[in-house]
Amino acid sequence: MNAPPKFLAEHAQVDSASVEPLPRSRKIFVTGSRGDLRVPMREISQSDTPASFGAETNPALTVYDTSGPYTDPAAHIDIRQGLSALRSPWIEERQDTEMLSGPSSGYGQQRLADDALSAMRFQLHRPPRRALSGKNVSQMHYARQGIITPEMEFVAIRENCRREAQLATLEALGGNGQRWLAAQHRGDPMGAVIPDHITAEFVRDEIARGRAILPANINHPEIEPMIIGRNFLVKINANIGNSALGSSIQEEVAKMTWAIRWGGDTVMDLSTGKNIHETREWIIRNSPVPIGTVPIYQALEKVDGKAEELTWEIYRDTLIEQAEQGVDYFTIHAGLRLAHIPMTASRLTGIVSRGGSIMAKWCLAHHKENFLYTHFEDICDIMKAYDVSFSLGDGLRPGSIHDANDASQFAELKTLGELTDIAWKHDVQTMVEGPGHVPMHRIRENMELQLSLCKEAPFYTLGPLTTDIAPGYDHITSAIGAAMIGWQGTAMLCYVTPKEHLGLPDKNDVKDGIMAYKIAAHAADLAKGHPGAQMRDNALSKARFEFRWDDQFNLGLDPDKAREFHDETLPQEGAKLAHFCSMCGPHFCAMKITQDVRDYAAQIGVSSEQALDQGMADKAQEFLNQGAELYRKV
Amino acid sequence: MNAPPKFLAEHAQVDSASVEPLPRSRKIFVTGSRGDLRVPMREISQSDTPASFGAETNPALTVYDTSGPYTDPAAHIDIRQGLSALRSPWIEERQDTEMLSGPSSGYGQQRLADDALSAMRFQLHRPPRRALSGKNVSQMHYARQGIITPEMEFVAIRENCRREAQLATLEALGGNGQRWLAAQHRGDPMGAVIPDHITAEFVRDEIARGRAILPANINHPEIEPMIIGRNFLVKINANIGNSALGSSIQEEVAKMTWAIRWGGDTVMDLSTGKNIHETREWIIRNSPVPIGTVPIYQALEKVDGKAEELTWEIYRDTLIEQAEQGVDYFTIHAGLRLAHIPMTASRLTGIVSRGGSIMAKWCLAHHKENFLYTHFEDICDIMKAYDVSFSLGDGLRPGSIHDANDASQFAELKTLGELTDIAWKHDVQTMVEGPGHVPMHRIRENMELQLSLCKEAPFYTLGPLTTDIAPGYDHITSAIGAAMIGWQGTAMLCYVTPKEHLGLPDKNDVKDGIMAYKIAAHAADLAKGHPGAQMRDNALSKARFEFRWDDQFNLGLDPDKAREFHDETLPQEGAKLAHFCSMCGPHFCAMKITQDVRDYAAQIGVSSEQALDQGMADKAQEFLNQGAELYRKV
Repeated sequence: MNAPPKFLAEHAQVDSASVEPLPRSRKIFVTGSRGDLRVPMREISQSDTPASFGAETNPALTVYDTSGPYTDPAAHIDIRQGLSALRSPWIEERQDTEMLSGPSSGYGQQRLADDALSAMRFQLHRPPRRALSGKNVSQMHYARQGIITPEMEFVAIRENCRREAQLATLEALGGNGQRWLAAQHRGDPMGAVIPDHITAEFVRDEIARGRAILPANINHPEIEPMIIGRNFLVKINANIGNSALGSSIQEEVAKMTWAIRWGGDTVMDLSTGKNIHETREWIIRNSPVPIGTVPIYQALEKVDGKAEELTWEIYRDTLIEQAEQGVDYFTIHAGLRLAHIPMTASRLTGIVSRGGSIMAKWCLAHHKENFLYTHFEDICDIMKAYDVSFSLGDGLRPGSIHDANDASQFAELKTLGELTDIAWKHDVQTMVEGPGHVPMHRIRENMELQLSLCKEAPFYTLGPLTTDIAPGYDHITSAIGAAMIGWQGTAMLCYVTPKEHLGLPDKNDVKDGIMAYKIAAHAADLAKGHPGAQMRDNALSKARFEFRWDDQFNLGLDPDKAREFHDETLPQEGAKLAHFCSMCGPHFCAMKITQDVRDYAAQIGVSSEQALDQGMADKAQEFLNQGAELYRKV
Repeated sequence: MNAPPKFLAEHAQVDSASVEPLPRSRKIFVTGSRGDLRVPMREISQSDTPASFGAETNPALTVYDTSGPYTDPAAHIDIRQGLSALRSPWIEERQDTEMLSGPSSGYGQQRLADDALSAMRFQLHRPPRRALSGKNVSQMHYARQGIITPEMEFVAIRENCRREAQLATLEALGGNGQRWLAAQHRGDPMGAVIPDHITAEFVRDEIARGRAILPANINHPEIEPMIIGRNFLVKINANIGNSALGSSIQEEVAKMTWAIRWGGDTVMDLSTGKNIHETREWIIRNSPVPIGTVPIYQALEKVDGKAEELTWEIYRDTLIEQAEQGVDYFTIHAGLRLAHIPMTASRLTGIVSRGGSIMAKWCLAHHKENFLYTHFEDICDIMKAYDVSFSLGDGLRPGSIHDANDASQFAELKTLGELTDIAWKHDVQTMVEGPGHVPMHRIRENMELQLSLCKEAPFYTLGPLTTDIAPGYDHITSAIGAAMIGWQGTAMLCYVTPKEHLGLPDKNDVKDGIMAYKIAAHAADLAKGHPGAQMRDNALSKARFEFRWDDQFNLGLDPDKAREFHDETLPQEGAKLAHFCSMCGPHFCAMKITQDVRDYAAQIGVSSEQALDQGMADKAQEFLNQGAELYRKV
């Protein structure tokens, strides 16, 4: 074995904080139609209901798991080796790719040849792969030919998340509690069409139509496939990345593993500082989730930050460099056209997208059309040779409430719709990025325009932030907008951390951002009525009602925080068995009193459903009927 | 002067953290039609725009201020003395009240006579006041007689918050920046009717109709009047209170001053532990905001936590005791009727309202109708003798997503509508409490039903929480629902802290809860199009664009946190003058590049509006027209 990079030699393991399984959770795998198609999920076990609440068995709950092998004690983690390339056989079997002798980008070759970098270089013993000449290796291309790839089957199993199996278990167990667990409000999907059971054929069809993307670069065989589309669970993205001002490769890898531990479905590496190429390699080789980038950031570094010196050739080389490393989706600001720029003059905050402002500067400096727009078909040719998905960047997204939904923003969105058509002509998977800062009452316009102009290509929004006045809390200003637009149809929500507008997020900020966005995404899934979404809410609420404190913590998004908060008030271990809440003490606990009511009813010899005499029950029924009628009227 | 209570002797000052003015802020007063009607506001001064951005003057921004005299360096604060009784002359002039010789409640007398309590007793040298026999001293009663009280005038000035004066200043200053500051999106008020200028007559009319309440107990002359109604700014409430498990009087007073510093419009004292009576006195005497309570909590303490031993007489005495201390609104669970209780049998989490569960237990134990319901008119008689407002409690609010919008919840809401009518017959001010846990798509039903059943009486909602799965983050799960229901018409949002369901909030939790709810309330004001609401967003975004870092911090909801976050990345004082963001460094700062674009345009001799040749500008106009057309079509 080669000597490990010096500065990483002692860091074979990622942060221990990222590798332990979550409490009472274990990694399970659901195997698909072939032995090497094993879909990971997280199973959270529960305690039995105490005797005073009916002594029933509470089945383990299976939840979607983004954390990869890191939370699997059976996995051997060594970030110098990277994750195993589970998709390699699938890619090879398709026989439409070739192994290159090495990087085909000039920059990739240059970095590989630079001895000074060998200490920090990830030692990959696998050359890059590319489509055979004339072949298109995108999942969309396969889908349109009617082919169901292993990736599509993987995604179908993952989205179902053992829901039917769990419902069957609940059925078998019987009892009130089990019935409750399966109950769910009818959602309001706002035009989404979510089947009860996701089949691989449904996945294929959604990808073929362009309503979903499955980002999966052939040079990122380590990923556990996932899907982004309005008819699937709402996903979230976490941004990481170093800047000229700080943070190391090691830190960025740790942020990635930390982000996926808490639920990041994809990670964007927005590095703009030193050694972007090498940092990215380490992240990709260790990431089980798709990685996105904004290639213009690196291209700009290559011309020392002088936007006007950017050229198509430099940019093209950067795309190939990154595609051969395995980046799964590229944010490309091809929709910002020269003619849109004057429209921003009346803005309060001009152009706030970094990529957008770089391209605007280039356009003005040359008095020429955006070269990403003029070379868009050339870009498509690169994308389909590696299966990189487009994330069409919104360079003109509003940076303040004042600038929301203005003419420049929507003019760009219209162009993004036109580019979507071109990408689809090439069978290149495409999603579209969205705002930004938008007050609540103008969010829906964004979603409706995007669906219409971009023909239902997945929308991928930043927030939106519903007010500008809370720097330090923009994970909250934006989670409000994210939940709403997620319900309305956004397929993936790009997180915002509390440090937005102020500084670089550290690990705490990354977690806070993820939590706010997991909440927004799940709230959206509930509102859409995604099948089974409510099961976790039901399980947690049942645990809460039955004073199963540990189960309440463990079923939540962040068991550590919940436990820590509880223990601040009642640190004794015994308190977690207490039948009252730490907030109010025994006399005032509503849940305890409700149980007393049930006990009282049992004591006087009636069931809790019939705790009152028949006359009262009739009256109750009368009220119920009136209530139901009222409900229909309003 | 009497000797101060021993344990408070050294605490004449509240926490220094609560008494300093916020950075670059000063307290100003707008005087009304009489000299003693001085409405406090907070004025935030700004720096000038740097030369590179146009060198203009940025006027001070005036914002609504809930913090009371604590942030006024000119005020002498001694919590042993309490705040000055600014409303006393107004109350006396009405000549419809009498001074009592002492508390008229049995319990109030008993506590006063207990020497063991003298050390902790607030030394109030003013007897309680009560309406003269046959008189009604509620603001609603005055309003319905056509009387505009000083309290109403105070509120009108406060709600306008010097908006017109600021707009005139902006006009006089001229310049682009000034125009931007005043710009605002047209809102979607969803049936609210918000005038451009709030007059005292409008306030009177809204109170007379019952669409707004002005909580102002005649025994709480220390308050700075505020209003709760759908056609005014959305308000937030912060809960404090000790429990059997901890916290002292001193801590509760400190939590109150802390909560109002950050924007709490009212505070509810939910104490359930020792010395509730004495704690409350200290809070009220030092509170410039209305104080709410749930009297059943204290009544239950009086019967040692045995709900079945509660009686109307004990409860009645508690109402009088608290009314004579100056509580401004009472949560009263009179809408939970015996017949509703069986409807909760099919719930996952039963009855989660503490007050509701207490009353349910009483009803079942006695097989009798809720005595709060049967004695409702007796309660009205007490309310109008002191001007205590009703907050009709939702004892059957759902405690989980599963139980949202069920028959029991809506049956109770219907009863609350009937009780609203009865309260209004007595000219008693009334608001109605709402859920709870509700998924996003079922929130609007709550608002619409409440408006219809309760005839537009102000809605006061807890959250709602849009998912159950995030214990430790329920300030966020609920801020999402709060922003939405605030937009839809809720007049006041009851905050939820990160400790909800887990433990008692400490000061950090109180602040986190307030911040999440200030965001929700302001996002709602923006969406409703409340006149002038966007001015603060505009000012902050302008400061952000012009790299006026200090102004950006100071205009935000939490200047301390924003500064702290910024300084983690770039601690040097000079960095706050840097023309790039701490996130990306100089090359990648979009705002910097936008400025470069403007500079470039200036350099080549065109204005930024005409940075391109006329042909391009025409094309841009064409796009703009197309964009506008598209916008109309969808």
